Amino acid sequence: MSKQKLHIIKVGGNVINNEVLLTSVLKDFSELEGFKILVHGGGKKATELANSIGLKPKMVNGRRVTDKANLEIVTMVYAGLLNKNITAQLQQNGCNSIGLSGADANCILAHKRIVKDVDYGFAGDIDTVNANNINVFLQNGMTPVFCAITHDKKGQLLNTNADTIASEIAIGMSEKYSVSLIYTFEMNGVLRSIKDEKSVIENINSVSYEELKKDGIIADGMLPKMHNCFNALQKGVSKVIIGNPTVINNKNQPFTTLVL
Amino acid sequence: MSKQKLHIIKVGGNVINNEVLLTSVLKDFSELEGFKILVHGGGKKATELANSIGLKPKMVNGRRVTDKANLEIVTMVYAGLLNKNITAQLQQNGCNSIGLSGADANCILAHKRIVKDVDYGFAGDIDTVNANNINVFLQNGMTPVFCAITHDKKGQLLNTNADTIASEIAIGMSEKYSVSLIYTFEMNGVLRSIKDEKSVIENINSVSYEELKKDGIIADGMLPKMHNCFNALQKGVSKVIIGNPTVINNKNQPFTTLVL
Repeated sequence: MSKQKLHIIKVGGNVINNEVLLTSVLKDFSELEGFKILVHGGGKKATELANSIGLKPKMVNGRRVTDKANLEIVTMVYAGLLNKNITAQLQQNGCNSIGLSGADANCILAHKRIVKDVDYGFAGDIDTVNANNINVFLQNGMTPVFCAITHDKKGQLLNTNADTIASEIAIGMSEKYSVSLIYTFEMNGVLRSIKDEKSVIENINSVSYEELKKDGIIADGMLPKMHNCFNALQKGVSKVIIGNPTVINNKNQPFTTLVL
Repeated sequence: MSKQKLHIIKVGGNVINNEVLLTSVLKDFSELEGFKILVHGGGKKATELANSIGLKPKMVNGRRVTDKANLEIVTMVYAGLLNKNITAQLQQNGCNSIGLSGADANCILAHKRIVKDVDYGFAGDIDTVNANNINVFLQNGMTPVFCAITHDKKGQLLNTNADTIASEIAIGMSEKYSVSLIYTFEMNGVLRSIKDEKSVIENINSVSYEELKKDGIIADGMLPKMHNCFNALQKGVSKVIIGNPTVINNKNQPFTTLVL
């Protein structure tokens, strides 16, 4: 018997920050048929809250350093404000969503990032995704909505990269499902020229990826995203797509498909 | 066949505010055998956060008036910070907890309180508890942990009294389970004299309740709690107890048992 299909869709901060866009994306997501999981990033609200109480978010190499005070902020904003408002909007659309952190039903077990050159504080690197518990939700008509907070099963919550969460959940679920992992972001896909929205590279495989890296076409912030994509493909995920949020409802626009 | 037992335990703000007490209560809750649900109140953290960003929580008749800014605060603190930290601590104790708001899996449907004399803002009055979805968690080895946030299925989150949430969940689950509803708070039970911790009234029924009200022994903040208790008993809940948190593990101390 062939596996059932599961769509895992990651929406980033640019969607979260734009109320009109978010409403439209959540509508498209609600209309998507079959098994599905949403993973959402953070957006600017955590930084705004931190500023308003006089905390300065610390960034090193483009990543947030999560001290205790900033962990409280992201737990409140990601797992509380954003996750519950997204869940409520999906419920309004008739999608029986359930908002989750990695601590809930022990869905995502992580450990505090080991300090090498930089101490990232309460940043989590994922150890295990509990596919059985996530499957309980899917098989009972519930649509999981994950925020980017995990835990270590020693009582500690951890701030975790949302792209990696999406990738690891996709890998974890691929034993039971034929998984399509879809990263949505502010561009139409991986671009040959960052200034030209029409220069979408429609197909990338592991050979052309190496060339694109060598030529400097894929660089900087795209590198960890691409790493998550190829890691997912290597570990059993059927299909990985990068595009703008309209890919969710298959509107006729270009996007990037990754294959091994 | 007799129904299986389900314990529903509500812990209030005084427990939440005291880290040592909370750890001890969560340990006792984790060790409680059989089906169980935790409902937690808010505590002082929401007020502290509101103060630190210059918001003043508005109170009318001892109830918080929830404007849009304060709804954001309680959503962040109750559904984010408190709910996820409690869930992570229970996971540490080996209790497979799942933190939920009423929006998650549409567990608790409410409507915005209708304005009569006072506009309580985004305060929710409960319409329906989704016992089937809550039962999915219980039957799959998960222990629900509810915060005091509900939704209206029109995309709106609502701030809802935690005592009422505990009572309504207890009523909703009593068709499937023999439910014991346990309210824990800072006193040893309902006291004959508020100054004497030893003056616990061990049994109250609906007749003696009327007398205690008439004599002014039960008054003020205890009245809505007692209303929730008797409402639960009238609607099928097997047992209602009020006591300090040590009642969870049956330590040998007095508490109040309510019967019809």
